[in-house]
Amino acid sequence: MTEPVDFYFDFISPYAYVGSTQIDAIAARYGRKVNWRPVLIGITVLKIMGLKPLPETPMKGDYLRHDGPRMAKAFGVPFRQHGFKGANSLAACRSFLWLKAQDEALAVRFAHRIFKKLWVDGIDITPPESVAEEAAALAVDTQAMLAAIATDAGKKALNEAVDHAIKVGAFGVPYVVVDGEPIWGCDRLWMLEHWLAHGTWDGAGTAGLAKAAK
Amino acid sequence: MTEPVDFYFDFISPYAYVGSTQIDAIAARYGRKVNWRPVLIGITVLKIMGLKPLPETPMKGDYLRHDGPRMAKAFGVPFRQHGFKGANSLAACRSFLWLKAQDEALAVRFAHRIFKKLWVDGIDITPPESVAEEAAALAVDTQAMLAAIATDAGKKALNEAVDHAIKVGAFGVPYVVVDGEPIWGCDRLWMLEHWLAHGTWDGAGTAGLAKAAK
Repeated sequence: MTEPVDFYFDFISPYAYVGSTQIDAIAARYGRKVNWRPVLIGITVLKIMGLKPLPETPMKGDYLRHDGPRMAKAFGVPFRQHGFKGANSLAACRSFLWLKAQDEALAVRFAHRIFKKLWVDGIDITPPESVAEEAAALAVDTQAMLAAIATDAGKKALNEAVDHAIKVGAFGVPYVVVDGEPIWGCDRLWMLEHWLAHGTWDGAGTAGLAKAAK
Repeated sequence: MTEPVDFYFDFISPYAYVGSTQIDAIAARYGRKVNWRPVLIGITVLKIMGLKPLPETPMKGDYLRHDGPRMAKAFGVPFRQHGFKGANSLAACRSFLWLKAQDEALAVRFAHRIFKKLWVDGIDITPPESVAEEAAALAVDTQAMLAAIATDAGKKALNEAVDHAIKVGAFGVPYVVVDGEPIWGCDRLWMLEHWLAHGTWDGAGTAGLAKAAK
C-alpha cells in the first residue's frame, strides 16, 4: 500500500515534537509520504474528553516532566523544558494550514522551525509575531500570512482540521493513522515502523524486545 | 545493579495483563527479580487524579477497545475482550498480598491465573469465590485466605500498597520502576529492555526503530 501516513500534531506537545523529528524518515524508508495535520489538542482534551491538560494532571504531570527530556534523549534530539504556562499554538497551526494550502513541503519546513523554537530554543510561539519570524526565515510573505490567519477562512480551516482529528479519534499527539490503524504516542513509533515493514501486528512487541536487548 | 524491578499492576487492566506475560522473562534475561505490586488503579485515577475510568473516557475508550487485542497480538498472547462493567480486583489484590506474604512465587503463579481468568477465559474476578477458585487450583487453603482478606489487616495491606504506588507516581498500569526510572505502559517494555541491556536512554528510540525495520 502506498497511502500517506497521517501525522496529527500540536506544537505545544513535547511528544509531538519528538515525533516530528522522526516521522518523515520512517515513512520515507517505506516509500510513504506523510500528511502533516495540525490540531489543537487542548480543545479535544478539555471539551470532548472532559479532562485536565496533561501537565496539570496530578501524577501524570510529574511523569511528563521527567519523560519529555528522556524521550528526546532516546531519539537523539535536542530538548529544553520551557517554563511557559498557557503557551498556545493557535497562530502557528493556522499559519501552518495557510502555508500547506500553497506548498506542503514549505509548511513542513515551517513546522520544524516552530517545534524547534519552542522545544529547543525555549521561545514562546504564542504571539503571531513569533510565528511570523519563522515564516520570514523561509521567505514567506508574513504580512499576507498574518492577515490570512485573522480572517474567518483562516480560522475555519483550523476548526475543520480539529473536527476531523476528533472524528478519527486523535485524543492525544502525536497520533498517527497508517492504513486505518491508529497509533498514539512517540513511544509507539516502533509500532509504525513494524507495521510499515511487516504489515502485521503479529510478534511486533516480542520481536522489539529481542531487538532492544542487542 | 541487581535491585529488583518493581512491577505495579491491577488485574482489571488489559495492558497490565499483557505486561504480566512479559515482565519476568525480561528481568530474568538480566539477572533481575521482579517485585509484583498490586494496586487499585481506579482509586488512583478517580480520587487522586480526578479522571474518569479509561474505558469511559471519550475517544480514549474507543482506542483502548481496538488496542487491547492488538497489543496482545503484538506480544503473541491470547486475549478476549470481556463485557463486564464494574469488574473490580479488590478480592484478587488482597488475596495476592496475603499469598505474597507467605510465598512470593506462589503469589505470582496465582496472579497469572487471575489475569488469564479475566482476559483469556473471560470470567469475572470480582466475586471472592471466583478468586478463591484460582487459589484452590494451587492447593491454597482458601478458607483461610477468604477469612484473611476480610479482616482489617487484610484490607490495610492493600490500602498501604495503593498508597505506596501513589507515592512513587504509578498513575497507570503496568507501571515499572527500574533503578529509579518510571516506565508506564506495556507499549514501553522496549524501554525497560533497553535500560536493562544498556543502562542508558541514549539512542533507545532510534535504535529500536532501526531494529523494528528488520
